[in-house]
Parts: sequence; C-alpha cells; structure tokens
Amino acid sequence: MSAYKDKDARINGIKDQIRVVPNFPKPGIMFQDITTLLLKPKEFKDTIDMFVERYKGKNISVVAGIEARGFIFGPPIALAIGAKFVPLRKPKKLPGKVISEEYILEYGRDCLEMHVGAVESAERALVVDDLIATGGTLCAAINLLERVGAEVVECACVIELPDLKGRERLNGKPLYVLVESH
Amino acid sequence: MSAYKDKDARINGIKDQIRVVPNFPKPGIMFQDITTLLLKPKEFKDTIDMFVERYKGKNISVVAGIEARGFIFGPPIALAIGAKFVPLRKPKKLPGKVISEEYILEYGRDCLEMHVGAVESAERALVVDDLIATGGTLCAAINLLERVGAEVVECACVIELPDLKGRERLNGKPLYVLVESH
Repeated sequence: MSAYKDKDARINGIKDQIRVVPNFPKPGIMFQDITTLLLKPKEFKDTIDMFVERYKGKNISVVAGIEARGFIFGPPIALAIGAKFVPLRKPKKLPGKVISEEYILEYGRDCLEMHVGAVESAERALVVDDLIATGGTLCAAINLLERVGAEVVECACVIELPDLKGRERLNGKPLYVLVESH
Repeated sequence: MSAYKDKDARINGIKDQIRVVPNFPKPGIMFQDITTLLLKPKEFKDTIDMFVERYKGKNISVVAGIEARGFIFGPPIALAIGAKFVPLRKPKKLPGKVISEEYILEYGRDCLEMHVGAVESAERALVVDDLIATGGTLCAAINLLERVGAEVVECACVIELPDLKGRERLNGKPLYVLVESH
C-alpha cells in the first residue's frame, strides 16, 4: 500500500468512528461526537500519529489545548514531539495569574484563559482542539498566544465544519484538519 | 543507578514541578497545580511513563479519565497500553445517553456522567485523575463503572492528599499515586 493510500485509509477509519448526535446541545445542531473515536484504540492512535508525523521536527515548543476536548488530543501530541502542554481553560479554572480573551461561539458567549508565564515570547506554538466550527474559540486561543509574543505555527483539529467558514477567522494562521463534515 | 533510585529520582523530579497555590478556589485550600508539571516535557513524560510501566500487560481495556484534568493524563496512558479512553464528564457535556452519579466534594456538590455503551460488562478499567482529595469524585467514577459491570482494577492519581483520607472511600479499590502532599 502506498503512503498516500495508507493515509487515506487511516483518515477514513477515523471518520467512521465519529458519531453525529442530532440536536445537541441545541435543536438544529448536528454534534460531532469524538468520544466514540476514543473507544477505538487503533483509530485514536492513528489520529494522534497523523498529527505527530506532521509536527515532529518542526521546532514546536508549545502545544496549547482548548478545554475540554483539546485536553484529550493535545497532551499525547505534546509528549510525542517533546513540547510543553499548555491548557487554555474556561474562566476561574486556572489557579495562577491569567490573561483572558472573550469570544462569541455557535451557541452563546464564552471566555478562554491562559496562565501568565506558561508561554514565553518567541516560542513556536501549535493550537489543538477536537473541532473547528465558527472559529471563535481558536481565534481566542491564537490571540492569547500572540499577546505573550508566541508564534502560532498552526491550528490542528480532528474535524472541520467547512460550511461555517471558521478557517477564515484565524488571523491568517494555517489550519490542519483530518476530517471535514458537511 | 539502580531501578529503585531511578524511580525515586523521577518522582522527586515530578514533585518539584507541582506548584502549590494558596487559597484557590476558596480561602484555606492549598491548590495542587499540575499545569506547571505539564510545562516540563521530561517530567510530564516521566509521569506518564511511570503509570504505563505499572499498567502495561495488565489486560486493562478501559482508561476512564475524570473531567477536566483526568483528560490530560488518561489519554496518553490509554494510547500506550492499547486501551480505550472513556471521558467521565460534568452534567450535560456528553451528547449521547448517559448514566449519572452525584457526589459531594471538598467545596460543594457535583455530578459525573458516563456514556451508555462506552464500557461493557466484565471490562477491566483503570480510573485516572490528577489528584485525590476526599475521594468523592473517584468514588462516583468507580460507581459508574461498576454499574455497567466493569471491574475497576485500580485508581491512579498524580497527587494524594493523605490527610483527607480519600483512599478509605474507594469501596476497597486500590489507589496508586506518585506524590503525597501534606
């Protein structure tokens, strides 16, 4: 099997394990549920491996994961590429001094916080989440990292909802996704 | 260096990276902050490796991680031992059908949910969280797993606050921790 076909097969295997739950958390929303992917050790490992293959050797020193599902995918990537893991959390969850970014999301308004001192100026950062919808959360994450002088190399998500055009809201930062869902 | 001394050195290295934040989230609580450990790739990897060395080859098919910091430590362990990862979440976060367990924690009352169908009868499960305080959250996790017929092999935490005697509330299940904090 060629490397290209192998990649294709792995992506199809991953896509097959993502469950769509209609009308969650609100009527009309087709929720992309990655918890079913996590139940499949091979496909979960393929997911992490595909990110690691892309980011290994790219001098990334920070993997920033967005609460809560970014905490599931970010740490295994950080461990494999030898980067630190920085959790970006909902308000009042981080115990130390923080900086905050407000953002508007698909169904409401929210805020993301990062510990002061977690990321230093000129560090190269990767932002990880399970899904990009309107891009509001990822945009807040990029802003937090750029405010402390870090360079956001890329945003990485398992799933993109391309119809919502979130990719256009990332301040020109590249986005890498494994699966598109229409 | 002997294996024993190496283990000791790794544990001391891990302990040194845990920050204590006084009066968070309430006055009088000395919060054990693992986010500083995550900033150190070597010590974060040592943490995961120590769990993996303990659980590899033990026929564990489920690693259940408790929201949100159990999501950081659980998945790398699950991936390394070839187990599924099952997130145990706060109410209304999981999109599918769930079972719930209420519990009392150090500062309030809360509830933990697990997807129906995520864990099957007779599966061998490991429960992972960053910290055991009074043991209420871990006890709820054990109850969720046992309600669907799984066998809880052990609970694994980075930090134990032994003065709070949480270990005694785990329905007789063994607890493994790397660091004790008094």
